[in-house]
Amino acid sequence: MSKRASRETENAQNHLKEDEIFTEAVRIFKQKGYHATSVREIADAVGLQKGSLYHYLSSKEDLLFRIFERGSGALTQQLEEILAADDSAANKLHRGIEAHLNELCDQLDIFTVYLTERRALSGKHHAKVRAEGERHAELLEKIIAQGIRRGEFRRMDAKMAAHAILGMCNWLHQWYSPNGRLEPQEIARVFADLVVHGLQARTE
Amino acid sequence: MSKRASRETENAQNHLKEDEIFTEAVRIFKQKGYHATSVREIADAVGLQKGSLYHYLSSKEDLLFRIFERGSGALTQQLEEILAADDSAANKLHRGIEAHLNELCDQLDIFTVYLTERRALSGKHHAKVRAEGERHAELLEKIIAQGIRRGEFRRMDAKMAAHAILGMCNWLHQWYSPNGRLEPQEIARVFADLVVHGLQARTE
Repeated sequence: MSKRASRETENAQNHLKEDEIFTEAVRIFKQKGYHATSVREIADAVGLQKGSLYHYLSSKEDLLFRIFERGSGALTQQLEEILAADDSAANKLHRGIEAHLNELCDQLDIFTVYLTERRALSGKHHAKVRAEGERHAELLEKIIAQGIRRGEFRRMDAKMAAHAILGMCNWLHQWYSPNGRLEPQEIARVFADLVVHGLQARTE
Repeated sequence: MSKRASRETENAQNHLKEDEIFTEAVRIFKQKGYHATSVREIADAVGLQKGSLYHYLSSKEDLLFRIFERGSGALTQQLEEILAADDSAANKLHRGIEAHLNELCDQLDIFTVYLTERRALSGKHHAKVRAEGERHAELLEKIIAQGIRRGEFRRMDAKMAAHAILGMCNWLHQWYSPNGRLEPQEIARVFADLVVHGLQARTE
């Protein structure tokens, strides 16, 4: 094997191991909580010595921060695209709620850790995650404000309405089960129906 | 001092110390998380030896469970009274949301621990807290179902609507600040307006 080919194989193996560490860490953090989980437990779960684990991560907090990045990044991008689209505010809200619930239910463990372990992050990491959460609220607020400006929605405290929507979506991590009665898309339809109906200007 | 009077004084002092332990435990659990908090830290915060602290509680989990009881008991009772009252479903929902936000904002630290540390409880304690959360959802669902039956609300998945309301209320623990722009009653008015408007049957 050439030097380059062997380096590529090594890189690929590293990525596989990183994914495995990531998945196991999410599982254990969710089950026991971040603080109650030791680096040794994560190492044991992936069959590494504690020392070797640090080849893949700089600290336990580094791992937690990566979980946060995966949990929220994709949703932010989707909400930005939805806001910029040429569509009614009602449809945008429906699409935003659906995107939120799909992401959350598809990656339930990651989102649960993301939503319950924020305070475990320190300094710069904490500020970044906080800013990301505020960005979600801000994008929803902009969609609602657009609807109000166009006369599609009635006058309303758009910031509070955005927080209400964010809350109903995020809270799913506490009660949603993949074996439950409804699919994420069906729950999204009920939520969006409730909210859009609640925001729409009435003609009567 | 008679034996009885001295016993009463001792009881009163015990209650004061218990309250102090409770308040400090809530503060530290909220700040660091339950698992990251040691019994020694709680003892230090109230000026007791670790051994003496066990005079007031049987275990750290016992303390956490008491926090849960204080966090949710009062709200359940209020929701039961509201459901049984002679009032429109719209008013009942408004009163239910207001009661929820008042309780949560008045006891923000207790509710934050209540809402974020559930999984730290084991066995019977966990089942009891889970049942209490389900009871909240159930009471809201009954208010909504009442409104649908009376033709005041349109047909709607009452269980999902209840979860939506519970989520928007509970999520406040993540963003509410006593120094913020709105009082809990004002936030409750916006939430109730959004939800009631969303549920109401339209005449048009």
